[in-house]
Order: sequence, then structure tokens, then C-alpha cells
Amino acid sequence: MATAMNAEQGIQLTLNNFKEAWNAHDAKAFAAAFTEDADFTNVFGQNFISRNAIEEQHARIFSTIFKASSITEMKKRIKMISDEIAAVDVNWNMIGAVDMHGNPWPNRKGLLVLVMKRENDNWLILMMHNMDLLQLPSH
Amino acid sequence: MATAMNAEQGIQLTLNNFKEAWNAHDAKAFAAAFTEDADFTNVFGQNFISRNAIEEQHARIFSTIFKASSITEMKKRIKMISDEIAAVDVNWNMIGAVDMHGNPWPNRKGLLVLVMKRENDNWLILMMHNMDLLQLPSH
Repeated sequence: MATAMNAEQGIQLTLNNFKEAWNAHDAKAFAAAFTEDADFTNVFGQNFISRNAIEEQHARIFSTIFKASSITEMKKRIKMISDEIAAVDVNWNMIGAVDMHGNPWPNRKGLLVLVMKRENDNWLILMMHNMDLLQLPSH
Repeated sequence: MATAMNAEQGIQLTLNNFKEAWNAHDAKAFAAAFTEDADFTNVFGQNFISRNAIEEQHARIFSTIFKASSITEMKKRIKMISDEIAAVDVNWNMIGAVDMHGNPWPNRKGLLVLVMKRENDNWLILMMHNMDLLQLPSH
């Protein structure tokens, strides 16, 4: 399955760039992982449309609540929808964040829900939702 | 744009059936809104693959924590990805749920993140993630 391998590699490359850009707090490099018309919804349900709006929003949060944050792990699961479209779930862990009140927000975990699109040889993020997962009660 | 109108109508029809089936606590009718190979992730990050697995899981929760629950509102936002694929965000409100400890879980709100696919004239759910939104701090 050469096509699936190439898609997987292209998707992984973009996710690597995403993580590096996050950890460098570089909003421009971060936004380069997205399509021009990309659509992003954060854990509060706030919605940002366009690569520019995503760059601006991340410039804000990279200089405030996520200034000292690092993504330590990203674990992906891919469902190919067509040759050009993939749904990608990414479980992530983050250290060093603070919340909107300035309190430590340690060991954040969550799930990125991505729809990615192939543009020539690049796999870019067309839609991203960031989910904070609820904890299951222990039995 | 006749095509977009038809897609919008087809998507709305499936969402209407989804809501009616939920409110009737009918797992079979609920699962009929999904493709055979559908992929569902709940607010805890638990993942269920296939229409059958989704039906079984909903039969369980319709007879327990969601036995007396009703969806009161569903508000959709559609982003067409191709003629056959749509990303659909649905903000929902629910009353009458209880949590896993048996305590009331009143006025739940959240966001369904759907990827829907046209199969002949039916728009079915290929992927669904259910997000519980975090509350923004008041300023």
C-alpha cells in the first residue's frame, strides 16, 4: 500500500513540524501546518477561521498561558477518508502551561481531532478541534 | 447552489433522526445515522468502531445514565470538504442525564464534531467525537 505509506509519512511530517513549532512558541511556523481556510475550535468552543486568524491567536497564547509550555508526546491514529482527506486523532501531553488565572495547569492531556487534506505533497490541517477529555470514575 | 442546498437538507434530515432516536432512547434507530464503519469517540476518549459497536454502546447508556435524557437543541455549522464529505459541528443541550455516580448531570452542553459522508442520497456519520467544553473564566 504505497499510497497509504506516503500519506502516513506526509501526515507525520506535518505533526512533527506542529510539535516543533509549538515547543519553539513560533506562531508563524505553527500556522504553516494549516490550510489557508483552516477552521480551529479550542477547548472552550471558541472558533478561529483562516490560517491568519490561527497564527494571531497562537501568537497571543504563546506569549501568555503557553509561554513555557511543551508538548511532550503526540500519538496519532489515522482514518483515510479518500486519497486526499484523512481524519487524524492525536492524543497529546503537555507540560508547563498555566491557566487563564495564572495557576499552573500541569500535565495537560487531551485529544486533537483533525481533518487533514493533501495539497500537492503536503498534508495540511483543514479542521482542528481540541478536546479536553473528562476523567472516567474509578470503579 | 443546488448541490449545497441538497447537502444541507440531507445533513439536517440525518440530524433530525439522530435527535428523535436519542430522545426515544432507541439504539437501533440511533445507529442508523452512522456508516457501517463509523468511528465514535466519547467525552472520556473511549473509542467505538462500527455501527454495531455504536448501537451496543448506546443501548447500554440509553438504559442507564441517559434513560431519562432529552436533547433539547442541536445547532449545526457545516463545512463542505467535497461533494461527498462534510465536516459538521453541532452544539447541543441536554436535560435529564445522570452521571456515572448516579448524580444529576443537568443542562449538559457540548459540541459534536462530525465528519459526514454521502452514501447515495443519505448523509451518514463517518466519524463522531463528542466534546465537553471547558468554561471560560469570567473577566
